[in-house]
Amino acid sequence: MTSFFDRLRLTAAMTSLATDVPQRPAMVWIVGAGPGDPDLLTVKALRLIKTADVIVYDRLVSRAILALASSTAERIFVGKTRGQHTLPQADINALLVAKAQAGGTIVRLKGGDPFIFGRGGEELDALREAGIDAEVVPGITAALGCAAQAQIALTHRAHAQSVTFVAGQCRDLVAQDWRGLAGPGRTLVIYMGLAAAADIARKLQQEGLAATTPVALIENGTQAHTRVLKTDLAQLEETVHRFGVSAPSLLVVGDVAAAALERGTVESLRALAGLGS
Amino acid sequence: MTSFFDRLRLTAAMTSLATDVPQRPAMVWIVGAGPGDPDLLTVKALRLIKTADVIVYDRLVSRAILALASSTAERIFVGKTRGQHTLPQADINALLVAKAQAGGTIVRLKGGDPFIFGRGGEELDALREAGIDAEVVPGITAALGCAAQAQIALTHRAHAQSVTFVAGQCRDLVAQDWRGLAGPGRTLVIYMGLAAAADIARKLQQEGLAATTPVALIENGTQAHTRVLKTDLAQLEETVHRFGVSAPSLLVVGDVAAAALERGTVESLRALAGLGS
Repeated sequence: MTSFFDRLRLTAAMTSLATDVPQRPAMVWIVGAGPGDPDLLTVKALRLIKTADVIVYDRLVSRAILALASSTAERIFVGKTRGQHTLPQADINALLVAKAQAGGTIVRLKGGDPFIFGRGGEELDALREAGIDAEVVPGITAALGCAAQAQIALTHRAHAQSVTFVAGQCRDLVAQDWRGLAGPGRTLVIYMGLAAAADIARKLQQEGLAATTPVALIENGTQAHTRVLKTDLAQLEETVHRFGVSAPSLLVVGDVAAAALERGTVESLRALAGLGS
Repeated sequence: MTSFFDRLRLTAAMTSLATDVPQRPAMVWIVGAGPGDPDLLTVKALRLIKTADVIVYDRLVSRAILALASSTAERIFVGKTRGQHTLPQADINALLVAKAQAGGTIVRLKGGDPFIFGRGGEELDALREAGIDAEVVPGITAALGCAAQAQIALTHRAHAQSVTFVAGQCRDLVAQDWRGLAGPGRTLVIYMGLAAAADIARKLQQEGLAATTPVALIENGTQAHTRVLKTDLAQLEETVHRFGVSAPSLLVVGDVAAAALERGTVESLRALAGLGS
């Protein structure tokens, strides 16, 4: 039995054999869709989404953004849920190559920025190997979108001279060396770290951070039903559970997080839970 | 002699005294203008620029972007050249407060993202202290814009699990502790580091990085006359001088920089200089 993707690969191979002067494949646009709010798309991303013939998109691309595409555009979902890809990365790569060979305006639309934990680099490598041109359009990565909303200055002359982005999935957490990435004068932003929040808090304290180091949690950043909560490393796990924080959420660790403006239903929840501000 | 800014402060004070029911001051929008290409503005930033009554802007905001503003908008330049502010930060803060008290749509427009080495945090602090509401609109920071253009995946499962942004001005470089921020599996992006490139290369090698660590230099990223050059720590200083690289330039240090696509006039310059690729 041949799968859809075996057939795609076969079609691509036949296409390139079928003509004496092979047609030049289309370019692939690897486009960042930003953190979710369509207002935070770049002008260039918006234009590409509106004119795309094919949009290959991830789970984190919001419905409101997909709704901007032409009604005739082919939409292909290749998103993943945590730990489980709908399509393995190799098949996504093969799909992009096949679509480029078929022609048209091909947009690979990724949440946030393609090069910040988006595997854009791997897709770019695959396209380069297949001899297909690609251009990358940057997007507002979650750290920037969430920080703006929560009014957390990721760098600040008085508080933080550097900012680092890491990914905090459970699976890779033990193997990851974060030594030196957080500490006084350094802001650490953790993507995909909610499920492992307790382990992250322990890991950072083992590496020397104070239990009182401020942490801001931004849930559904820039989207409807967003919440911003302030806590610290010692109380991070309890905060996640008490307020039922769900993914996608971003963690900002460091002194700058203390200035976060709490938003959403936090105040009423704090009152219900009998917590101070 | 009273300065323009003394008068501004006086006017603001008189305004708040002159009425029994003080008018609520306007909100200030602190807006990221992205790396220079107007196509990389967010949809929200574009709308605010078009409708602003007052735009207070920096040197790194491109002419093409300012040209999008209404012809009736008041444009106030408060930019800095290296080491020299046109206005001290305290006066910029006072100006924003005074303009907000005078009303209208006030846009504080900053190159890149307001919270990445943009002093957006300090301006936000000043507005909060004055009781003035502010909203922050994120922008494509130079690291993301330049990486997309140079096709450098700042994070990549095979090469880099974290990315850190630092500022490399000459003045603060000695005092800055970069230990642990760069190294295997870590990408370091240095803003404003061109003038101190030789010191930066030494500093990073003293902290244990190999002389052969790849470095990409992106000059005028996303703008006209952009160039992307690849080199390594050992040859960074020579590369800057031989190719006459000028500011604004961004440095990307780490294994991922080896995949950069060289752009602009690099090839012909390399041929002239008798260098290999």
